[in-house]
Amino acid sequence: MIAFADRSAFLHAISNMPIASDAAARAARERQAELTKPAGSLGRLEEIAVFMAGWQDDPRPKLDRVCATVFAGNHGVAARGVSAFPAEVTAQMVDNFRSGGAAINVLSQAAGAKLTIVPLDLDRPTGDIASEAAMSEAECLDALNAGAAVVSSDTQLLVVGEMGIGSTTPAAALCAAAFGGDAAQWCGQGTGVDGAGLARKIDAVDQALALHRPHCSDPFEMLRRLGGREIAAMAGAMLAARLRRIPVLLDGFITCAAIAPIAAQHPQFTWHCLAAHCSAEAAHQLLLDCLGLEPLLRLDMRLGEGSGAALAVPLVRAALATHDRMATFAQAAVARAG
Amino acid sequence: MIAFADRSAFLHAISNMPIASDAAARAARERQAELTKPAGSLGRLEEIAVFMAGWQDDPRPKLDRVCATVFAGNHGVAARGVSAFPAEVTAQMVDNFRSGGAAINVLSQAAGAKLTIVPLDLDRPTGDIASEAAMSEAECLDALNAGAAVVSSDTQLLVVGEMGIGSTTPAAALCAAAFGGDAAQWCGQGTGVDGAGLARKIDAVDQALALHRPHCSDPFEMLRRLGGREIAAMAGAMLAARLRRIPVLLDGFITCAAIAPIAAQHPQFTWHCLAAHCSAEAAHQLLLDCLGLEPLLRLDMRLGEGSGAALAVPLVRAALATHDRMATFAQAAVARAG
Repeated sequence: MIAFADRSAFLHAISNMPIASDAAARAARERQAELTKPAGSLGRLEEIAVFMAGWQDDPRPKLDRVCATVFAGNHGVAARGVSAFPAEVTAQMVDNFRSGGAAINVLSQAAGAKLTIVPLDLDRPTGDIASEAAMSEAECLDALNAGAAVVSSDTQLLVVGEMGIGSTTPAAALCAAAFGGDAAQWCGQGTGVDGAGLARKIDAVDQALALHRPHCSDPFEMLRRLGGREIAAMAGAMLAARLRRIPVLLDGFITCAAIAPIAAQHPQFTWHCLAAHCSAEAAHQLLLDCLGLEPLLRLDMRLGEGSGAALAVPLVRAALATHDRMATFAQAAVARAG
Repeated sequence: MIAFADRSAFLHAISNMPIASDAAARAARERQAELTKPAGSLGRLEEIAVFMAGWQDDPRPKLDRVCATVFAGNHGVAARGVSAFPAEVTAQMVDNFRSGGAAINVLSQAAGAKLTIVPLDLDRPTGDIASEAAMSEAECLDALNAGAAVVSSDTQLLVVGEMGIGSTTPAAALCAAAFGGDAAQWCGQGTGVDGAGLARKIDAVDQALALHRPHCSDPFEMLRRLGGREIAAMAGAMLAARLRRIPVLLDGFITCAAIAPIAAQHPQFTWHCLAAHCSAEAAHQLLLDCLGLEPLLRLDMRLGEGSGAALAVPLVRAALATHDRMATFAQAAVARAG
């Protein structure tokens, strides 16, 4: 099991990330050129097959073990009225996840993914980022390690999602701290907050940035001061996945914001990530641009829970199935382009 | 079985198309508002559920019987060197479909769709549209009816695709005849033709338009003069689906071009159609704009065979699964937005 002993162990890990296998990716690319279709005609499905081959170090990558994880946390800043929903909905939705009634239950089942729900101290919200740090160093490490602990070494694709009323507020603050820009640029309507709520949200992010920005010198400190438990857990899970060369499907704005602190300083962190979708949250496109990622889907979703990432799993399955099972020109006796 | 006795029976059918059930669509929309998620947060998945409910006339639409069909035909105009591949590849790919080695075999299996392959007189190419009509009236009717015959009444979703070396040339001619514009605007690289081949293609479409445009007063005549057997068959299949209120997933440029003659005169023809994807074929986006359709996927595919449509089936499945199986706010005791 991967665990980070302290802040410097975490920082050491992000400075020493493994990369994909060139040989497996090259072999996959060569196989694609032999399959009975015009060269390149499966578009991004071909790229996905090559990507998965590289990270699984297997020219014929597999997708028997897909793990979906939803981390849940509560946010002190939610008390400022930054969300359309009351904070107790976080725990209520965790119950809903456990009894199988939420979108992610249905979508992960449809995707053939095993779903794990990880609530993190829901009765103990983080500090209100507008006036204090979200977490102590020990709390942030606990959250990072709770995320890392979920990633078993035999996972072939990791789907990461979250639930936490108020979470787009710390997510916006993290984006601004990581990539610059002001609060208004990164704040959107989340689950559907009204104009007054959005103004409170922008105000909270402004205050948080004024308070914490001078101290946000490294990714750990950004996550600790401006993040949340579920956000740090997602970062920990995605870093653990990278250390094991497990590819990751990113979900929406909050999931992407969780890696912003790392990716801003180490752009190669996104190399093991596929952006599943661009959500309807206003700043998600900007964040994807900052991360250098082109999303697979644009379906105006804005639910979180890993729902957009789970929805993209069948695309990855289709990419690997065509890569593995199509006939070659030689096998099918089909003539090539003249 | 639906069959068109003559040209006027076909024209009568397209002037008398049934529409979706308002009541079922409304009931589906009401159910969506009760599910445990912020209103609208599943984006286009919600629209798809409502669309399917309307066309299936069922507030909880099903997807047990998905049919995928690939029509194959050969084109006289291919002899002008408008494609990167030799014409014999059409028949070779039909053999490949039959032995299960093509992309559509793998993708329709992954989609849980039953695949039917319909080759249409492959040893008898249509007339060269640059110098004559593609088909006689009887030939065009035969092709339309071959398409209509494939659509069984218990189909819950129809995936339509094609194979035919040279087919983007008649497809471009149909688009220009239906929606206006010149040959260059509608001609792209197809399976990967080079610059000289593209010039021959534009020249062929120019000649075809000069010869046939004055006579293209109705959709039948457009399909007969400028289409091809597999193109007319797709039009027949999609019209038969409409007459039975069966929803259709449109594939790429050629599939969309097959309905252009009908949709240009009867824009409501696309109401039972979902555009599965926007392909890398240059004019597909323009054609989707003309048809008023927003594609579900943009993955730079350009293979045909119904591959893009098959790839979108899991999105429809996900839409119906969340619609059917998610808990309501009341069932899960989750608080609503404040």
